[in-house]
Amino acid sequence: MDLKELQAGIELLSSMDIGRMFCDDFLLTWDKTEKELRAVITVADILREMRSRNISTRIYDSGLAVAIFRDKSTRTRFSFLSAANLLGLAAQDLDETKTQIAHGETVRETANMISFLTEVIGIRDDMYLGHGHTYMQEVSRAVREGHGQGVLPRIPTVVNLQCDLDHPTQSLSDLLHLIHHFGSLEALRGKTIAMSWAYSPSYGKPLSVPQGVIALVSRLGMRVKLAYPEGYSLVPSIEDLAEKNAAASGGAFLKTHSMAEAFADAHIVYPKSWAPYEVMQRRTELLKTGDSRGLDELESECLELNRRFIDWECSEELMERTNNALYLHCLPADISGVSCEHGEVAGSVFERFRLHTYRQAGYKPYVIAAMMFLSKVSNPAAVLSRILRGRPVRVVHGA
Amino acid sequence: MDLKELQAGIELLSSMDIGRMFCDDFLLTWDKTEKELRAVITVADILREMRSRNISTRIYDSGLAVAIFRDKSTRTRFSFLSAANLLGLAAQDLDETKTQIAHGETVRETANMISFLTEVIGIRDDMYLGHGHTYMQEVSRAVREGHGQGVLPRIPTVVNLQCDLDHPTQSLSDLLHLIHHFGSLEALRGKTIAMSWAYSPSYGKPLSVPQGVIALVSRLGMRVKLAYPEGYSLVPSIEDLAEKNAAASGGAFLKTHSMAEAFADAHIVYPKSWAPYEVMQRRTELLKTGDSRGLDELESECLELNRRFIDWECSEELMERTNNALYLHCLPADISGVSCEHGEVAGSVFERFRLHTYRQAGYKPYVIAAMMFLSKVSNPAAVLSRILRGRPVRVVHGA
Amino acid sequence: MDLKELQAGIELLSSMDIGRMFCDDFLLTWDKTEKELRAVITVADILREMRSRNISTRIYDSGLAVAIFRDKSTRTRFSFLSAANLLGLAAQDLDETKTQIAHGETVRETANMISFLTEVIGIRDDMYLGHGHTYMQEVSRAVREGHGQGVLPRIPTVVNLQCDLDHPTQSLSDLLHLIHHFGSLEALRGKTIAMSWAYSPSYGKPLSVPQGVIALVSRLGMRVKLAYPEGYSLVPSIEDLAEKNAAASGGAFLKTHSMAEAFADAHIVYPKSWAPYEVMQRRTELLKTGDSRGLDELESECLELNRRFIDWECSEELMERTNNALYLHCLPADISGVSCEHGEVAGSVFERFRLHTYRQAGYKPYVIAAMMFLSKVSNPAAVLSRILRGRPVRVVHGA
Repeated sequence: MDLKELQAGIELLSSMDIGRMFCDDFLLTWDKTEKELRAVITVADILREMRSRNISTRIYDSGLAVAIFRDKSTRTRFSFLSAANLLGLAAQDLDETKTQIAHGETVRETANMISFLTEVIGIRDDMYLGHGHTYMQEVSRAVREGHGQGVLPRIPTVVNLQCDLDHPTQSLSDLLHLIHHFGSLEALRGKTIAMSWAYSPSYGKPLSVPQGVIALVSRLGMRVKLAYPEGYSLVPSIEDLAEKNAAASGGAFLKTHSMAEAFADAHIVYPKSWAPYEVMQRRTELLKTGDSRGLDELESECLELNRRFIDWECSEELMERTNNALYLHCLPADISGVSCEHGEVAGSVFERFRLHTYRQAGYKPYVIAAMMFLSKVSNPAAVLSRILRGRPVRVVHGA
Repeated sequence: MDLKELQAGIELLSSMDIGRMFCDDFLLTWDKTEKELRAVITVADILREMRSRNISTRIYDSGLAVAIFRDKSTRTRFSFLSAANLLGLAAQDLDETKTQIAHGETVRETANMISFLTEVIGIRDDMYLGHGHTYMQEVSRAVREGHGQGVLPRIPTVVNLQCDLDHPTQSLSDLLHLIHHFGSLEALRGKTIAMSWAYSPSYGKPLSVPQGVIALVSRLGMRVKLAYPEGYSLVPSIEDLAEKNAAASGGAFLKTHSMAEAFADAHIVYPKSWAPYEVMQRRTELLKTGDSRGLDELESECLELNRRFIDWECSEELMERTNNALYLHCLPADISGVSCEHGEVAGSVFERFRLHTYRQAGYKPYVIAAMMFLSKVSNPAAVLSRILRGRPVRVVHGA
Repeated sequence: MDLKELQAGIELLSSMDIGRMFCDDFLLTWDKTEKELRAVITVADILREMRSRNISTRIYDSGLAVAIFRDKSTRTRFSFLSAANLLGLAAQDLDETKTQIAHGETVRETANMISFLTEVIGIRDDMYLGHGHTYMQEVSRAVREGHGQGVLPRIPTVVNLQCDLDHPTQSLSDLLHLIHHFGSLEALRGKTIAMSWAYSPSYGKPLSVPQGVIALVSRLGMRVKLAYPEGYSLVPSIEDLAEKNAAASGGAFLKTHSMAEAFADAHIVYPKSWAPYEVMQRRTELLKTGDSRGLDELESECLELNRRFIDWECSEELMERTNNALYLHCLPADISGVSCEHGEVAGSVFERFRLHTYRQAGYKPYVIAAMMFLSKVSNPAAVLSRILRGRPVRVVHGA
């Protein structure tokens, strides 16, 4: 990106109708307009470019960004704290892995107790179908009540770092990667993407990555092919959403039970394991009642079921059927012969795209920072212009 | 608070004889003069008001604030790191939960090893009667020796985040809440506060909250009523201290074994569970010898004992006996029908005061920051004046 | 250090041929020239002096410093984060204690995933002979590949916080301590240092401290006496390296199986326990195969073996044989009658040198900061000059 492109990005942003993003959360991409999504990727690109030019985008002198992880996560943790640091916020984890499904009073109270000087709350809660998104809404309501009632001086923005329904920081990073790879957002129109289930020897992977991807790219006029073995459907309402999106955007949404069919002529393939929707529903019920024997049985049953589809691997043969496709993965992948015996992807395929997948991941800190920025800054284009003119330096000495 | 009040606060501060606070620790409110305590709440209010006006109170460009938690604590952790962040320090935890009661060499050495670039050490150690305060004194002595002997370039200030005797950041937050609720410190004179034991289904809650409260408010000319079932006394010397304070301040200190009697005509009620002093003493001995069976037996015995006082609940009936009292709690409360079957407070009473208790908690980061500020800054009024004139911004862009 | 000495230090630095340090890692002292090592201690001293003069050495407005600990460490953690904070970086831990020996794909991927906005990666990995150093090289290669391939905008510098071979931040802190104690680097020439094994009731202490010390001080024209019981040798190639170094520097390198012989006429003694090289080799094999019974047996065997050398204690009698020697220890020491019944050092000896050992440890944050600084800043002397002229303040208000 040269300076002119940077300025063009800011101008584009200033022309967008995105006033509703100020002080708003970022929970689901389908709650956002296309303009708003475009604003996120535009700001992400601008922040990234500014950093590479040693321009500091620190907009805070102090303040906290709190990350609530209800599942372990090294990568998401680092992306979140990198984003916070980029804007001048100190990041702090709240480890809730042990508290399981928290409800009502605890959520309301804790949300306020951690927010007295907090600007952003990032939450990852993808373990329980029907819970993650609800939990984020509860936190959001609680801090808004707290602000309205004089408890909190500012409204902390809630950013979804992965829930049971969507994984917007992932899908928008994926999108930025595609834009940079294919040249522009417009270039994606008409391209075919295969979002496919793939075999994994592990169990219980969340559904939010494939759901987030199909719900997003179906809005861009892409041909979306969703493939999975029978019984491995996603949350039905999100499959329906993708279908409607595709119809509205002039794209297509096709479902198939054949990986080969999905890969045929695809420009992009995203082979990734997930647990069947129904298994996740049963799992949620068992977790609620604390039935650990039932959970063990379900795991065995599900792994047994998985093994029937061990040939759902992104192999060299399948890749040859594609239109010289770009391979995507949210990482870490189950790589056959590398991290496991049989996995989601053949070793040689992964190795060829390894650095591509690293780049794909590398957009995430900027996507998160952009979500924060657009919620906290009332006139984002003006502020970015001002920063570009002032050119505050990030590496103060000796860059 | 308007600008005039802010300036008046700074003027008030400049007139106070608080020179002894510079480079001093904050361990117990009863080690502090009334002027010094007034300085803390004044500075806390000023820092809070400045932040709400987007004025940065960052007095450090770099430096560490270390928190030593010998007991788990989400809320205190966040309050401490918020305070550190407000002043420009990076907060870092030292997790000592596993080291149990540390002594002598270990304390001296560790205190220095974590302090080479450290400005403040916050400590929470409330598990063992007769230990928490002693431990804080040992840390303080160790870093002062280290500074005197050329090991440390600066003396880290020790701030008590809860010990076995006192909980000054809590009691001073409570006080700020009362001041804002009743209009002024002076307005509290003559008011009646009921500090009462209440039933909880859990075990071993520390004594430092009620002790901290009675020791502080008895100095303000308030009528303090302390209520608990027979056998649930606090540390005797602190009950005595409250009595002397009350006599000196023109207030009153009354003890009763009836919650109803304590609540009668009270303007403020603070119903909260704690473990009997004698149980805590026995527990400390058992912890020392690592007698886990003895500890289990003591817990059963104590819970059995508690159940005899299950009617010590802050009910609607009791609240009606009060003088339209304000309900206080340090949170989290055991709420009947919400977080437990029978607890410290009726669900409807708590819900009515829920946001009040959140506000009560919200003063704590500023109280901790004020304790840090008054210890690290030699002329606090002059510095606050300078900041107010300079108006450095906290949210640099787009507030 | 007065202002002239500070300026002289900067001038000395500007005359050094240290261009190769820019963007380079710091893994082993023996990979560095004497000029480069001298640059580290010079910059460490300058940063320390600037801080004591309230001059801010913050060279970053934002950016991360990541610490990977594959073994628990409070002290190293605090030293690393203090160094990061001194330069303006936010420190973040990556806890890998559970992942054991990680290989290949995981290392490459994780190294990139944590580095999108990272300037420095500090690693402690001293558990497995033949692994720690290799792991650091793998991380370094991975982030350099990532930078070369457009994944990372900057090359994170890898700093060795202790590996299986060397412990450069320790040995250079030890050296700074000696320089300050004896007056200059030149004053160390011809001095005798006894690096001696000592008895400890614990097991499996790493070899990297004695190895780092003998490999470093043998380059300074010192007389190095290495003492250990038969069977307790260090990694042979490093003993050989020290011998060659001593020959080249005009010093001496002597090995003995008598602590008394090593202490005779020594100016400096460094009595410290370590596990025998062969035991560490067998331990590594057992760890690889996860043979926990074998590990237990090895531990028993090794502790049994240790007990035969219980008289290898730094006693008052042995200290009397020295040339009024300075006692060194990397801490924590096993102190007879204090932290254990029989240990590395007599209680009275340790107590006499206790504050000396604290000062010795106190150089470490500045050594780490100097390593970071010299790798990240292309013209370190010019930048330090500029900072000295500009005099940005660290404690902005009220120092």
